[in-house]
Amino acid sequence: MPDQIEELMARAYALARSAVAHGNHPFGALLVKDGEILVEAENEVVTTRDVTRHAETALVAKATMELDGKTLAASTLVTSTEPCIMCCGAIHWAGIGRIVFGVRAQQMVRTFDGEYRGIPCRDVFARINPEVEINGPVLENEGLQTHAEFWPEFLGR
Amino acid sequence: MPDQIEELMARAYALARSAVAHGNHPFGALLVKDGEILVEAENEVVTTRDVTRHAETALVAKATMELDGKTLAASTLVTSTEPCIMCCGAIHWAGIGRIVFGVRAQQMVRTFDGEYRGIPCRDVFARINPEVEINGPVLENEGLQTHAEFWPEFLGR
Repeated sequence: MPDQIEELMARAYALARSAVAHGNHPFGALLVKDGEILVEAENEVVTTRDVTRHAETALVAKATMELDGKTLAASTLVTSTEPCIMCCGAIHWAGIGRIVFGVRAQQMVRTFDGEYRGIPCRDVFARINPEVEINGPVLENEGLQTHAEFWPEFLGR
Repeated sequence: MPDQIEELMARAYALARSAVAHGNHPFGALLVKDGEILVEAENEVVTTRDVTRHAETALVAKATMELDGKTLAASTLVTSTEPCIMCCGAIHWAGIGRIVFGVRAQQMVRTFDGEYRGIPCRDVFARINPEVEINGPVLENEGLQTHAEFWPEFLGR
C-alpha cells in the first residue's frame, strides 16, 4: 500500500504539471478504489475564469455525477496539495471516505513567501466529519518543486 | 439599507423556493452591488447530481466568469441560508467583500432533527479572511418555513 500511494501521488503530481501546461495552477487530483483510478481532474481556474474549479472540486463534480454513494465512500481522493476548505467541503458532501495529500498548504505558501490563512484539512474534518481518514504529506519535496517552479514567476515575485 | 436587505433576502428565499420547484434543495443566492442584482443562482445538486452545485458555488462560478475583481470586492452575496465551508471557501476565492445570510445552519438542521456538524461561517472567515463582513440571520423565520416544508418530507422523517 505505501508503494501504491507513492505511485498514485506521482500521478497526481503529473496531473498538477499537466494543469500548468494547460495554462492553469499546479494542482491535480484523482479518485482511486481497490487500486483502480476511477476519475482524474486538474485545476481549471485560469482557463475557465471559474474560481470554483480547483482540482478536487472538479474531481468531486465528475465523481458524484458518475458514481454511486457506496463507491464514493469506499474510495480515496489523492490530491497533489492539501485541500482548501472549499475542497474539504466538496469532499465531505461527496461522502468520499479517505484523503491522501502530497504537499502541506503551509509549505506551498512558503514557495512564494505568502501568508498561510487557510484551515488545515485535519482541523476541518475533525469538526465536520471525523470519520474521514486523512494521510499526508506524501512525497512532499517532489510536489513542492512544482510549486516553487510556478508561483514566484506567476505572482511576479 | 435594512429595508433593502430584507427585500434582497425575500428574493433569495424566492430563489430557494424556485430551486425546490426545479427538483433541487431549498437554497438560493444573489450578488448585489450598489442596489443592483448582478447574478442570481439556485441549488442544482439533485438535477445535476453534482454535489458542488450549491447556490453559492453556482453563483460564484457565474460571478467570477462574468465580473472583475474590483466589482466582486465591492459586492455583497445574499444567501438564503448560512454558507457551508465549501461555499465559504468559494466566496473567499472570489474575493467577494460581504455576506448576508438568512437562516443559521444550526436552525435549518433542527427542522429535520439533524445533527449540526458544520463550522459557522463567522468562525471560518475569522480564520481565513477576517476582512469579509458578515451579517445574519435576516428574516430567519420566513426562511425556516421553507426548510420545514422541505426537509422532513425529502428525508422521509
